[in-house]
Amino acid sequence: MSEMQLSPKMLEDVQAAISAHDPAASDDVITVQYLAALQGMMLAQMSMPQAQREDIASQLADFTRHVLSEMSRPPAPPPQQEAFGIWKPGKS
Amino acid sequence: MSEMQLSPKMLEDVQAAISAHDPAASDDVITVQYLAALQGMMLAQMSMPQAQREDIASQLADFTRHVLSEMSRPPAPPPQQEAFGIWKPGKS
Repeated sequence: MSEMQLSPKMLEDVQAAISAHDPAASDDVITVQYLAALQGMMLAQMSMPQAQREDIASQLADFTRHVLSEMSRPPAPPPQQEAFGIWKPGKS
Repeated sequence: MSEMQLSPKMLEDVQAAISAHDPAASDDVITVQYLAALQGMMLAQMSMPQAQREDIASQLADFTRHVLSEMSRPPAPPPQQEAFGIWKPGKS
């Protein structure tokens, strides 16, 4: 994979796909639980030893935290500019 | 939520929704990464303190591991029956 194509539209479409099976999943708190469950379901289907599946589950959990942290970061403040025409004490 | 409506068909539909945005996601290893990323994305959008979002992320990771463990469990073996007509040493 070159780069992930994450977008609000993808999330919307995935939520719609889940909601088609369970209308309760129109609630974000429910949807996010489905995402977690589907992850476990996919991992269980992978043909590899259980320990390796659990290892991938841990890596994915770290990845979720990483995305959460990146996307929660407040947007950078605009570059600070020197106020113009305002007297500042202590400045020569 | 009364009970989750997890099904192979739901997983298939969700994978199709993701693949529509990124054809690479027809590969399960990619899809599962999208599921993790979308989780982070959804959590980041929830209006609650960051610590609470991270707490939910941890609970979701535990839930994924639970589903993985439940779904990976091999089907119960048939009840053991006494072999019939076979001599066993040490049995009177």
